[in-house]
Order: sequence, then structure tokens, then C-alpha cells
Amino acid sequence: MGSRGVPDVLVTPDWRGRRDALRGRLDVAGGDLMLVTDPANVRYLSGFSGSNGQVLIGGTGEDRLVTDGRYEQRAAVEAPGLAVIVSRKPLEVAVAAGGDGKGVLAVEAAHLPWATAQRLQEHAEEAGVPVIATTGLVEELRVVKDDAEVARLAAACAFTTAALGWLIAEVVAVGRTERQLAVALERRFVDIGADGVAFPSIVASGPNAAVPHHAPTDRAIVDGDVVTIDCGALVDGYHADCTRTVTVGRFDPEMGRVYEVVREAQAAGRDAAVAGALAGDVDAAARDVIEWGGMGDRFVHGTGHGVGLAIHEAPAVAKGSRDRLLASMTLTVEPGVYLPGIGGVRIEDTIVVTADGPARVLTDL
Amino acid sequence: MGSRGVPDVLVTPDWRGRRDALRGRLDVAGGDLMLVTDPANVRYLSGFSGSNGQVLIGGTGEDRLVTDGRYEQRAAVEAPGLAVIVSRKPLEVAVAAGGDGKGVLAVEAAHLPWATAQRLQEHAEEAGVPVIATTGLVEELRVVKDDAEVARLAAACAFTTAALGWLIAEVVAVGRTERQLAVALERRFVDIGADGVAFPSIVASGPNAAVPHHAPTDRAIVDGDVVTIDCGALVDGYHADCTRTVTVGRFDPEMGRVYEVVREAQAAGRDAAVAGALAGDVDAAARDVIEWGGMGDRFVHGTGHGVGLAIHEAPAVAKGSRDRLLASMTLTVEPGVYLPGIGGVRIEDTIVVTADGPARVLTDL
Repeated sequence: MGSRGVPDVLVTPDWRGRRDALRGRLDVAGGDLMLVTDPANVRYLSGFSGSNGQVLIGGTGEDRLVTDGRYEQRAAVEAPGLAVIVSRKPLEVAVAAGGDGKGVLAVEAAHLPWATAQRLQEHAEEAGVPVIATTGLVEELRVVKDDAEVARLAAACAFTTAALGWLIAEVVAVGRTERQLAVALERRFVDIGADGVAFPSIVASGPNAAVPHHAPTDRAIVDGDVVTIDCGALVDGYHADCTRTVTVGRFDPEMGRVYEVVREAQAAGRDAAVAGALAGDVDAAARDVIEWGGMGDRFVHGTGHGVGLAIHEAPAVAKGSRDRLLASMTLTVEPGVYLPGIGGVRIEDTIVVTADGPARVLTDL
Repeated sequence: MGSRGVPDVLVTPDWRGRRDALRGRLDVAGGDLMLVTDPANVRYLSGFSGSNGQVLIGGTGEDRLVTDGRYEQRAAVEAPGLAVIVSRKPLEVAVAAGGDGKGVLAVEAAHLPWATAQRLQEHAEEAGVPVIATTGLVEELRVVKDDAEVARLAAACAFTTAALGWLIAEVVAVGRTERQLAVALERRFVDIGADGVAFPSIVASGPNAAVPHHAPTDRAIVDGDVVTIDCGALVDGYHADCTRTVTVGRFDPEMGRVYEVVREAQAAGRDAAVAGALAGDVDAAARDVIEWGGMGDRFVHGTGHGVGLAIHEAPAVAKGSRDRLLASMTLTVEPGVYLPGIGGVRIEDTIVVTADGPARVLTDL
């Protein structure tokens, strides 16, 4: 077991199959070998979860994982199907693998820093290895999840809703601070079996709930506060993402009306997330409800984002997005309304697009 | 208070002074304005800690922070000296700020992805704005810490040693699992006042201690195990880093000898970390001791690294490193010896280089 607490019942990912799919895309892009450097892409293709590792496919020899001495043994355990090369110079390893005019080397231009690309180009030119800049070859595979991925996301979401439900029922109360709630929630994730947190939890109370990405403070909850909690558990690298807004004590009719509008917008967004739709349609469905409610200028962000090995990935669920939804894509729907100085409401689910029907909600709470 | 639990007694960083220092370096590099995109560099120059923000200095107008709608209010609180521009297109904001042939735009080539640089170059060319690739302009400022930074690192290290000392004295015992120890330790960090963890804790017991970067598992400690714990607390963005190896129960003379060699190597490395020395000398001092002990081939990584707003930053404390140590640089000294299948020992401190004398050890335990 490579990382903390991966439920043993989860099916092993087909890393070799994913690399074969990438090989097909690489061929179309005109590359003979490829150095994959983005950590989430490396994990997707190999299972390796360390902080320094690159996957090299194609060229001379079998598929390889390049890492440093700290990770040699961990790589052998986590990425059993790959040859492990211990080197601090993955670019030189890649150029050598394409040597003697045998191959065009593809790199990930959306991840390789410009300065590194410049060094690579000089080195590759000397070696006679052509370099091509590709973008999205692995990400476009990742956007449609396989069963192993959906199972991990579902597990992460189940831990999230269990812990968040407990927090709301048992812990959220007048006098508790935002920070206390965040700490209690994140501990609960781990206690019930998650590997950790997908991102630092947002707990925003009273006027702080008007700040979409608020960092928890020592502010204590007072009677009549709204409290927005945006959180997610992590399972084997997969990120859950879920937000709920609750009222503590006295009910404020103004916030109640905001809540009803956001709830309706969120349901409309979920309903629009069907295979074949555009991600921009999901945004429009949610945004229209908020605009009809007269709060359009208080919805200051996109409606959602894809989620998986990264907390934010394709598709972009934002105004005008032309990303086409396909079955087994996973995304969030999270409209919000923010009234500066007063408070705010956001409701968010992580959902899976289905082949023919409404999206499956993974964060059912 | 921008982030969780920043001790209020810590002096406020002089963000404006740091930006002025960068302006001087930018001028030397031939730039008129600069877009800073690396999150640690952005935090260093502005105080902003959100996940999406860029600092723009020079050109027409005052210094700016570019972020999106989620962070507008948080930016105003965390970065009070900067104008906040809400935009998802920081490159276009930067090009516009250098418009009408008024300025050469510098970017961070070590951080800007290649694909982004290509888009920027096209857009800037149309606007008539020359672009230059710079590397290290902010990082070279960051390598020598100011008092506000040393205070934060010292606080992070104090939380780390307090929690690690407690863990070793009260929690490490036969039957406890690696994962239980990691969770208990990380909770202790937060309970005593840290913001969180600097990196996922390494707890490696028995044969797992032969894996330098081992991820904690459900393995339970047995009598006679060595246990290596590598951990750090986080305070206001600053990372502590500390490792100790302990024996549980029965003492193994072979590991005892390894321990003595590593302890001596670590002391030699610390002693070599004086102002004016090369970072490679620190590595050599530690490595020589291990080689004299006949274990040179079991020391599979560098002796250390700089530490601050990033867990790994300059100087590189590795074989042959020509980085010159200066007063108020902060770095780790962490030699280790790893015996595959048997166990291993690593000892690590975070230290501050002083003007004239031995380094100050921040992780005194």
C-alpha cells in the first residue's frame, strides 16, 4: 500500500492501459517518445506518488520512471510495471532515449517551465533529437474517469459527507471558532479512513461567508450566523469537493431568500450536467437562476470545475465554456451568492456525468 | 490575520522593501516591469497566500496584485499595500501595463510554463512589448532571510521540536503504527499553535527506515525497531524540517554503529555551515564522515537544502555545490545511511548561518 489508508477493496488502476492510450495520442501528435513531468499526470500513468518523478514512454526500451535516490524503493513498490531510473537529470535521460536520430521527443509544454524548455532545446539540438511542445495529451485522457478513478472519488466523497454531516450535527454551534471547526472536520476525515484533506478547508462564518475563499480565523460563531464549509477528503490522490451553508440559531429572512435562490441554481446546474451538453450550459443554468433572483452581480466566480487527481482540472464549468460533457466525467457544481459585510451562501456537490440520465451525485448529504 | 494561527507577536514583513529590492535587480536585468507568478515569490513580495495571485511591479502605475473574484477581499486584507486587480488574464494585464513601447516585461522563466510563455510572446509582440526571461530574481532575494522570516522559521521549528519531543517521549512504542504516529504528531503541531504541516510526515519503522522518503503505513512497531521521523510544522508559510531516528526496545549494535556515524556526520555538516563556506563543503564534511565509516554508498541523497517559504529552496547542500553561504541563510543538514531490508538512520536539523560563528540550530531537541 503506497499511501496512507487506500481502501484495499478498490480495484487497481490499469496504469499500463493508460500508458498505451497515451502512446496512441503521442503517435497522432507526431512524437516517438514522451517525458511526462506533471505530478498528477505521472501518478495517473504510473501510480507513483512521490514529489519527484517523471514518466518516460516510447523511444528505445521499456516504459521508465525517472526519480532520485530518496524514492528508488518507493517507486519500485508504487509503480511495479515500470523500470526505475535513478537520476536528477530526467531531461538528459529523455534525450538519450531518443538518441541517434531515432525519435522525436514530446514534452508537456503546459507544465515544463520555460527556462527548462530552453535548456532542453539546446541539449536536444546538440544530440540531434527534435523536441515538440504538446499540451493536454494526458489531461485529455484524465478528463473521462475509468472505474478505478470513480471508485476513489466516490470513496473520498463518502468520507467527506460523513464527516461534514457529523460536523454540522454535532460540532457547529455558537461559541465555536472557524478554526476549531476546520481542525475537527479534517481530523474526522482521517479518523474515518481518508488519507487526508484535498485542500485547506474553508470555514466562513457571519460576514466572513461573503468571502468565497476565506481562510479560517479565530472568529467565534454567534447566534444568527450563516456558516459556509467547503471541504474535501483525499483518497489515493483523488479529491472530493463539497460545500454546505447552514444557519446557526436565529433565522435571517434575507439570507433565507439567498439560500433558496442558490439551492435552486445548484439544482439547475446539476440537472444540466448531462452527457452531450456543454460545460458552459451548466454554468448558464445555474447563473440564470441567480440572475432571475436579482443577485447576478453577487455570483463572482464560475459554477464549477472538473475534479480528480487535481482539485481543479478540465472541464471548465464557467461562462461560455465549450468543453463538451461526456459520460464518466466528474465535476463540481457550486454556485454562490456573496453580500460583502453581511454574509453569503454556497452549495456544492461533486457529480459524475452518466451515459443517459441525470448526473450521479457523489456528495449526497 | 491572513492564515491560521500566525502568532501575533511576529513582526510584520516589509513587503514594500522587498519589492523595492526586486526593482533594483529588475533594473540591472534590463526590465522595466515584472510579472511574478510563483506562489512563494508572490507571498514573499505581497503577503498574499491564496492559490491564484500574481504580483506586477513597475510599468505604468503602482504595484499590483492580480487575482480572481474568489480572492478579491482576502487580497485586500493580506496585501494591504497593493492595488488589487481582479482578472483571470494576468499576462494581458501585464502586457497592457507595459504598453505603448514604454516597457520591457520580465517574467519568471523558471516558473512560467513553456506553453504560457509562447502565448505571452505572441500577445506581447502584437502589443509591441518586449519580453525577457529572467530566473532567480526573487529567489536570490529570498535566500538570505530577514528578521521577520527567521522569526517565523524559528517559531515553526519550536512547534516542531516540541511536538516531536512529546511524540518520542509519550507515543512511540511497540504496537503503534507508523500512520498512528504521523497523525498524532501532525495533530500536536496544530494543537500547540502551528498553522499546519510543512510536508507529509515521514514515519518509517524497522526495514521501512531504509526507505529515505517512506510514506507511513499500517505497520506496527516491534521490539528492536529503529523509527525515523521526518517532519515539520508550518507557520505563516514558513517550513520547519527536522528528523530524528530512535530505537524502540532492544538495542541493535549494528544500527547503533550506524547511528554514531550519522550523528558524527551531521555534527560535522553543521560545524561546516559558516558564513563564507560553500554549501558543497557542508555536504563534503558530512559525507566524508560517512565514507570514513565505510557507509558512503548507503548515503543516497544530498546533505540538505535551503528552507523557507518553500520546503526545498536555495542553497543546494549537495556534492560539489558552489552556492556560497551567507549570514541569515537557513538550511537543513540531514545525512542518512540506509541499509535495504534492514533499516536506516537520518538526523536532520534546520539551522541559520550566523555572521561570525557556528550556525544557530533552530530544531534543538
